[in-house]
Amino acid sequence: MENKEKTTIVLFSGELDKAIAAFIIANGAAAYDHEVTIFFTFWGLNALRKDQKIAVNKGLLEKIFGKMMPRGANKLGLSKMNFGGMGPKMIKHVMKKHNALSLPQLIELAQEQNVKLVACTMTMDLLGLQQEELMDGIHYAGVAAYLGDAADAKVNLFI
Amino acid sequence: MENKEKTTIVLFSGELDKAIAAFIIANGAAAYDHEVTIFFTFWGLNALRKDQKIAVNKGLLEKIFGKMMPRGANKLGLSKMNFGGMGPKMIKHVMKKHNALSLPQLIELAQEQNVKLVACTMTMDLLGLQQEELMDGIHYAGVAAYLGDAADAKVNLFI
Amino acid sequence: MENKEKTTIVLFSGELDKAIAAFIIANGAAAYDHEVTIFFTFWGLNALRKDQKIAVNKGLLEKIFGKMMPRGANKLGLSKMNFGGMGPKMIKHVMKKHNALSLPQLIELAQEQNVKLVACTMTMDLLGLQQEELMDGIHYAGVAAYLGDAADAKVNLFI
Repeated sequence: MENKEKTTIVLFSGELDKAIAAFIIANGAAAYDHEVTIFFTFWGLNALRKDQKIAVNKGLLEKIFGKMMPRGANKLGLSKMNFGGMGPKMIKHVMKKHNALSLPQLIELAQEQNVKLVACTMTMDLLGLQQEELMDGIHYAGVAAYLGDAADAKVNLFI
Repeated sequence: MENKEKTTIVLFSGELDKAIAAFIIANGAAAYDHEVTIFFTFWGLNALRKDQKIAVNKGLLEKIFGKMMPRGANKLGLSKMNFGGMGPKMIKHVMKKHNALSLPQLIELAQEQNVKLVACTMTMDLLGLQQEELMDGIHYAGVAAYLGDAADAKVNLFI
Repeated sequence: MENKEKTTIVLFSGELDKAIAAFIIANGAAAYDHEVTIFFTFWGLNALRKDQKIAVNKGLLEKIFGKMMPRGANKLGLSKMNFGGMGPKMIKHVMKKHNALSLPQLIELAQEQNVKLVACTMTMDLLGLQQEELMDGIHYAGVAAYLGDAADAKVNLFI
């Protein structure tokens, strides 16, 4: 148990393609029996948001951030060829056609494989995101916890 | 032979500047006698495309992707200050002026130094890219092969 | 002394949010007594530029690059939701409100903690940036020095 290989990924980016890449690597590493952590920070947190609007108390600026940032894995755009939302539709279409798992399915698989999903509490504060707005079953921690995991890991990626 | 240091790079991004950075690091590591792998996935695959159009059978969506994505190392844009193609011209000009290797030359040098160039077969499927459309002398593999290399490597980067 | 953990970060990106992430990780690792190096390359160099215009001799193209790239940590844009400069203002406002350190303060803290800030001399050449234009107390080196540090480090990130 102690001697498991470790892999950590910082998911900073909020785009569909980068989130898919992060979860494919994470699920692959978990399948290889690595202990895997994904640390969601800045725009990466949007992948963990619930689809529906959650009623929470927020300041004005936090409300604006909340409105403007994509709400959950289904709403993310592409880092390239987004074309106002057409790009993500095309990618989702070809993924379905090739029987590739969608991002929500990849997240579910990661949770089944005990990939530790950690939301960065510092950026949650900054962007005004509250725990009620994020999906269930995730962890909350700061950069110190990330560094603790990363210092023990063989593979550390920033995406 | 067994004890060589290993370095892996995932090239996810399809921009000229990021591809140049990836190949400069890869060639540097190879010069230091590291065993180096670059794993090309998503937009990064475009750096491996042949210049000319290759006649292959594709579905409509795959044809659209093929048309819209840059065809090869000479056609990539910049991640910043692209200015509709002026930016890459400026960068290529200053690189030539300073006798820096161009991206095609960096790729050639990498192949001479036995840097292993691996195209991600899963994203090739998704984007409809076929082996005939990519340059010669590269490998084809999936995320499992990448993780096998990365778990043995000291330096693992995601670009 | 010899046995200190090492962490390296390549800061390639020139955006405020990515620079903040890099410095938060770097400062965290330094607080954990890691030996930390940030290697600034391509657009990442802009975070090290002095605020004011410095009179140096340059060619025309280098002058254009110098004018168009942001001059220092206070001028960087965001990788997402930049909105012509409104986004960075919003982020700086919420950071202040939450008593988070600003980027210039994070850089100062890094220097106090002996995080080694290294400007990539090859990209300085390409972009026409000269030592007089960058902040004091930083190091100058090439990719070979970076690889030397990275091969000894546990955590290596490309941002």
